[in-house]
Amino acid sequence: MARIDYYDDPQAPTANSVVPSANVVVVNDDGAVLVIHRTDNDNWAFPGGAMDLGESLVTTAVREVKEETGIDCEVTGLVGIYTDPKHIIFYTSDGEARQEFSVLFTARPIGGTPTPSTESREVLWVPREQILDLNMDRSMRMRVQHYLEARPEPYLG
Amino acid sequence: MARIDYYDDPQAPTANSVVPSANVVVVNDDGAVLVIHRTDNDNWAFPGGAMDLGESLVTTAVREVKEETGIDCEVTGLVGIYTDPKHIIFYTSDGEARQEFSVLFTARPIGGTPTPSTESREVLWVPREQILDLNMDRSMRMRVQHYLEARPEPYLG
Repeated sequence: MARIDYYDDPQAPTANSVVPSANVVVVNDDGAVLVIHRTDNDNWAFPGGAMDLGESLVTTAVREVKEETGIDCEVTGLVGIYTDPKHIIFYTSDGEARQEFSVLFTARPIGGTPTPSTESREVLWVPREQILDLNMDRSMRMRVQHYLEARPEPYLG
Repeated sequence: MARIDYYDDPQAPTANSVVPSANVVVVNDDGAVLVIHRTDNDNWAFPGGAMDLGESLVTTAVREVKEETGIDCEVTGLVGIYTDPKHIIFYTSDGEARQEFSVLFTARPIGGTPTPSTESREVLWVPREQILDLNMDRSMRMRVQHYLEARPEPYLG
């Protein structure tokens, strides 16, 4: 389904839902980071998605990475919690206007091979110095920057 | 409304919702911690509650502390993210069975005076060495322990 990201935009629809989700920076032994080329909006992003009932958010993180990239991973830490109400994600298929609620974890790969999916047309390991060269939504670019800064404390936004 | 906490209990209702919430350890200059005596289940707890649409989770934290304790505070850090699907919170009034999703922040007081509310029959500053003497739900006791341990990394459960 198509997804449109709005940020601090008077044209944005009013939020009608909040759904906790996880995104993951999977970092391999060379320091390269796992990214997907999204099918829903043509942007690059860290893999991730919405929590299902019955799972913990760490389980969500591991499951979404596997589904979108083919990589098995283990969560190692936290970059930040992103809950800015100015960021609205609109799904054209059903009119859901979801207010951002995303937790960004770090992880290390423990198996699998990069494999595209219906949600990810390309899956790549990208050297950390090249991540910001990719086309990304503003909100994802901010997450990348927070990861690259290696902040001593998690971002709480 | 009455609230019943279940943990890893075959009698627990199946979760039918997940609602992000914030809890806050407000610590004063003497190291004492702000706690409330809940009206809904007679336990002691850190103040906190569910996120409203249109606010960030840090805003939720500050608002709930004010509503439940009368204290104005400023968020200073993170203790952990608690999303264990074995913890179900059942609301007898409407049958909602909410799966735990709580972020525990630290904060410092910047104004106000301890004031009970409809959700908090007593509001106290308790020295840190006495917090575990209070009657608390298992899940809240674990959060207290994580705070007291002063972990270098946030709990991700």
